[in-house]
Amino acid sequence: MNEKPYVVGMDIGGTNSVFGIVDADGHILKTGSVKTQQYTVFEDYVNAICTALFPLILEVGGIDKIRGFGIGAPNGNYYKGTIEFAPNLPWKDVLPLARAFSERLGIPVAVTNDANAAAIGEMTYGAARGMKNFIEITLGTGVGSGIVINGQLVYGHDGFAGELGHVIVERDGRLCGCGRKGCLEAYCSATGVARTAKERLEQSKEPSLLRAITDRPIESKDVYDAAVKGDKIALEIFEFTGKLLGEALADFVAFSAPEAIILFGGLTKSGEYIMKPVREALDNTVLRIWKGKVKVLVSELKDSDAAVLGASALGWEA
Amino acid sequence: MNEKPYVVGMDIGGTNSVFGIVDADGHILKTGSVKTQQYTVFEDYVNAICTALFPLILEVGGIDKIRGFGIGAPNGNYYKGTIEFAPNLPWKDVLPLARAFSERLGIPVAVTNDANAAAIGEMTYGAARGMKNFIEITLGTGVGSGIVINGQLVYGHDGFAGELGHVIVERDGRLCGCGRKGCLEAYCSATGVARTAKERLEQSKEPSLLRAITDRPIESKDVYDAAVKGDKIALEIFEFTGKLLGEALADFVAFSAPEAIILFGGLTKSGEYIMKPVREALDNTVLRIWKGKVKVLVSELKDSDAAVLGASALGWEA
Repeated sequence: MNEKPYVVGMDIGGTNSVFGIVDADGHILKTGSVKTQQYTVFEDYVNAICTALFPLILEVGGIDKIRGFGIGAPNGNYYKGTIEFAPNLPWKDVLPLARAFSERLGIPVAVTNDANAAAIGEMTYGAARGMKNFIEITLGTGVGSGIVINGQLVYGHDGFAGELGHVIVERDGRLCGCGRKGCLEAYCSATGVARTAKERLEQSKEPSLLRAITDRPIESKDVYDAAVKGDKIALEIFEFTGKLLGEALADFVAFSAPEAIILFGGLTKSGEYIMKPVREALDNTVLRIWKGKVKVLVSELKDSDAAVLGASALGWEA
Repeated sequence: MNEKPYVVGMDIGGTNSVFGIVDADGHILKTGSVKTQQYTVFEDYVNAICTALFPLILEVGGIDKIRGFGIGAPNGNYYKGTIEFAPNLPWKDVLPLARAFSERLGIPVAVTNDANAAAIGEMTYGAARGMKNFIEITLGTGVGSGIVINGQLVYGHDGFAGELGHVIVERDGRLCGCGRKGCLEAYCSATGVARTAKERLEQSKEPSLLRAITDRPIESKDVYDAAVKGDKIALEIFEFTGKLLGEALADFVAFSAPEAIILFGGLTKSGEYIMKPVREALDNTVLRIWKGKVKVLVSELKDSDAAVLGASALGWEA
């Protein structure tokens, strides 16, 4: 019997920090959360997390039962165990996240960014179980990625590898949140889909169900709802988005020749509306030796749990 | 004292197969070659190599002194030890290269493609000594690449990873030898530079030293010679080529966050004419966290020896 059968996973978001205690099968036994923005002093934040987490640890048998603590955080650096200049968190500068928690809890702590955590979660509990070479693409408000090669997550020289949301898919294209133009993220994120919708509606006079939405900005969910009803513009938006993403994936394949590319996050809820053009564009664009060979899968991590699960998976190797 | 102090390296080209016996410091002690095209039957080719190689092995003390045999070959597959459907070699189909030589010589044999061999050579004897994360880009007739992550060459799921010459830099751009359009290779190879020269001269009436070359096609070397003399069009061709390459490198950095990118091959002989725009475009284009941080270096492998040295380096791990 394993002496230390559990890990702790935590996802630090701009609004909430959600944590959970997870077993080896990926079951979340206990969860809790803290409001991230409430703590402007980093030490207060760390103490608040520990105060909320410790009772849960006691419920599963105490700190001796915890193998490690994995944290997914924006701009998380695996090598240094830090968060560095994360734009949406209340603390600026470089924060010694891993050290702060390991000092207080006496267990090993590892940090990485959210997309890397998702990739590790996918490999440990999800669609990439048994795979040694795959790429996880997170399609949320932004586009992130976690790259696994030879069974190891790619951190690169400085710990920040795998920023595939920021490859350029359209030279001098749309302005991206990173300050540059034409990034994948500016097109293939949920916000990118909404921007495409806005552009398309402005550029044509064609009727569309989306034109009925006048009291608030159009969201990617609206595009899906319209596509389900057969709306031509909505269907074209998915074709456009999927084609751009599939073409980008073809370049990623040329890099690491993965067994599969796994898509994660809100946009995948649009199912075949997005997956079909992605797969078609990949197969039409990829170098001949990979045609029909690279699987494009949807994540098997449940959205509500994925962030905590992914981070927790890092706890096993912390 | 090392019992097996040498390795054999061989570079299989469409014209010649060049081999050499190499020591741990990267000195080539003995070399030989065989005309590849002369042998239309694969078994005859293997026998011819062994017949030419064996006397050299005897001169360094016999097969017991040879640790392994590394082969760089077009479409070489590391996992399978094969060449697969190489367009410029006389034998079609899938050829069991590693097995054929290890059966005859009784030593371990490893196969990879030429660009991967260059990367391993660079890591073992060249500019990447001590580096764990770098990308080697070979700029010859084509554009190839070898990617090293965590000190290991990236082979991917199927053994064919690292085809960065075939990422798309210009959607629906120039036709590439691979049958697709807009590949990096169609612009940033020696032949790509020659194509750019032809295009530029046709598109303008501006005077240029290159216009004096009328009895044969312009080569990339001609563009260099003209650039040295201050020819405006020649300088613009390097600016254009370097900018495209630097922009592509920025995307590669987003993938694996390498410590350095090392450029190898004929085009690097143009020195700062090409290196300066490459570095500038990389720094102007790359995501902010990597600005000014990724070195762009010229290979330290001597051109004449590099292919054999690179392949031989694989012999140490065969």
